[in-house]
Amino acid sequence: MRELTIADIDDIALGSSLLGSGGGGDPYMGRLEAIAAIKKHGPVKLLDVDEVPDEWTVAPICGVGAPSVSLEKGTNGREYGLVRDMMERMLGRKLDAFLLSEAGGMNSMIPISAAARAGLPLINADGMGRAFPGIQQDTFTLNGVSTNPYCIADEKGNCSVLYTVNNDWTEEIGRAITTACGGQVTTLASPMSGVKMKESVVVGTVDYAQHLGRVIRTAVEAQGETPEEYFLRESGALRFFKGKIADVLRETRNGFNFGRVALEGIGEDKGRACAVEFQNENIYAEVDGSIVATVPDLICLVDVETFTPVTTENLKYGKRVLVVGLPCDEAWRTPAGLALAGPAWFGLESEYVPLEERCARKGA
Amino acid sequence: MRELTIADIDDIALGSSLLGSGGGGDPYMGRLEAIAAIKKHGPVKLLDVDEVPDEWTVAPICGVGAPSVSLEKGTNGREYGLVRDMMERMLGRKLDAFLLSEAGGMNSMIPISAAARAGLPLINADGMGRAFPGIQQDTFTLNGVSTNPYCIADEKGNCSVLYTVNNDWTEEIGRAITTACGGQVTTLASPMSGVKMKESVVVGTVDYAQHLGRVIRTAVEAQGETPEEYFLRESGALRFFKGKIADVLRETRNGFNFGRVALEGIGEDKGRACAVEFQNENIYAEVDGSIVATVPDLICLVDVETFTPVTTENLKYGKRVLVVGLPCDEAWRTPAGLALAGPAWFGLESEYVPLEERCARKGA
Repeated sequence: MRELTIADIDDIALGSSLLGSGGGGDPYMGRLEAIAAIKKHGPVKLLDVDEVPDEWTVAPICGVGAPSVSLEKGTNGREYGLVRDMMERMLGRKLDAFLLSEAGGMNSMIPISAAARAGLPLINADGMGRAFPGIQQDTFTLNGVSTNPYCIADEKGNCSVLYTVNNDWTEEIGRAITTACGGQVTTLASPMSGVKMKESVVVGTVDYAQHLGRVIRTAVEAQGETPEEYFLRESGALRFFKGKIADVLRETRNGFNFGRVALEGIGEDKGRACAVEFQNENIYAEVDGSIVATVPDLICLVDVETFTPVTTENLKYGKRVLVVGLPCDEAWRTPAGLALAGPAWFGLESEYVPLEERCARKGA
Repeated sequence: MRELTIADIDDIALGSSLLGSGGGGDPYMGRLEAIAAIKKHGPVKLLDVDEVPDEWTVAPICGVGAPSVSLEKGTNGREYGLVRDMMERMLGRKLDAFLLSEAGGMNSMIPISAAARAGLPLINADGMGRAFPGIQQDTFTLNGVSTNPYCIADEKGNCSVLYTVNNDWTEEIGRAITTACGGQVTTLASPMSGVKMKESVVVGTVDYAQHLGRVIRTAVEAQGETPEEYFLRESGALRFFKGKIADVLRETRNGFNFGRVALEGIGEDKGRACAVEFQNENIYAEVDGSIVATVPDLICLVDVETFTPVTTENLKYGKRVLVVGLPCDEAWRTPAGLALAGPAWFGLESEYVPLEERCARKGA
């Protein structure tokens, strides 16, 4: 157990943004909100997974929608209370703790704000180890946890509760509600016991994000190596490409941001070209027409100088970025994991080859 | 109080179809289902509005969606139990009776099926006195009744409950859920006390529908006048046009059926043209380019020989129909009623002129 204070927020937001793989929301608004919540309500108790009593009832909380919308349409904070009231009423009992649905800029901050406001502890874990576009694309679904009751609130005060026949239907109906509510909502769902949570989560997400955030923040002070070398070594990220954003195609459709960013090589990659396709999160990256990484591995764009992650809604012409990859949690590399979040789920014909293997092949 | 038996079903379905003003759903499937439900569970107690105890909790039940979808995607009957369980759980008490949301072919039958299965009485009243496309376009909204909790179930077993900030948001979100569920769902909403119901309903809908159904059924046996004269006199409908369907444009969009039907005059209307636009229900009718009737008055197309109402999903090239109108309930002619269901709500620039007035002017 440790306490999350305002001093922890920046690194968590920054590192989660990297884990967000282009999605999970820009941390800017969420960061301000988390700081305000801790200022008002005090620090948040962060529990490690094995500190959570088996009989507790816990649930992941997050924002759902098109990240580009969340830049303009924020939460007003009341949503957290609305979804919690709804969930507790449905369950007929109090929640004991929140956890993260996914690791992402905004979606690492929302649980902190919600926990601070509710005076509940936060569990150092999430359900993806990264961010994914689909509501059902989490390790809770992989472990048989139903989203029911799926509680949704918007900033106007509209609340919905879904009891679906399976988590795919939660995505269908939940997404439709998100779109009807203006493209961005807050959700609390998949309540589970402490013991079920322990079987189902990606462990240590907050710590890991904070570590990555510290690496990003301190890279410019690297000694005896370049900041880029330091960033890659300390984060464990694999480097694919350095380039300048030459074009961004984007479309907000069915409550998602779809698009493709084209990069022209700079520095040692001069003369080469890279493209990354995304659906909220980055789906695959190709260099000179060959795929170098696909979901479920993490594909991230970071600023070439500050290593600040560039989420898909912040892609801009002329920006210089490094395209890097991180291996996904092992849960996603199982047949069930790949069926739920592998290339085929995203309509990609490519077979899944783990990031490290692709890189080793290329090196060979 | 009287009992609705299988012998009553056909006339109620037929007459409700006329009140449906082109919408409210084709009664075919609903009729079979209501007959099956009464066969299995026995007759349904039909209570007049003034027989309902003030302290009862009652709620309207209906199908929502695009009527064309309901031709192929029926209910499976389990929805009625799902929405009732959900409603009673939300209210923390049992429902005492159902009523009709609207008068329409399918939506007159669903409450009968639901009442038979639940062993609950049905109230001889509805919330429109006709059918309207919008969820919030009812006399309950006009009288300040909230739709909360708005309970939705689909035939797959997916359930949703909405608590919205106003009934317009129920339409937005409820419609999105309907579309996500495949275009047709069952809803139970707007729970109210017996006393509130008495202030808010259109009274006697089942009786009125059954009377109209009997008129339609017996028109061919008319003595001393033509069947058409008998139908018009007994139903009180005003005759606008007799024609052959020359063209039907239709589009299913945002969970509604939108469209326009063009008619070429036959008989005494030979050489003239008529068009009727619809959004699930008929919105306005024009003859030779002049509007003859608009919402909220009832505009109905009926077969020239059998007087069977032709709902918008059953419009077919070559069909010969009579275009007739019936005055709407007085609630719709108030400023609040016109704001919620008048021409402007449907994007029509025409001022509302009551049907009888338009006809009198034309006659003058």
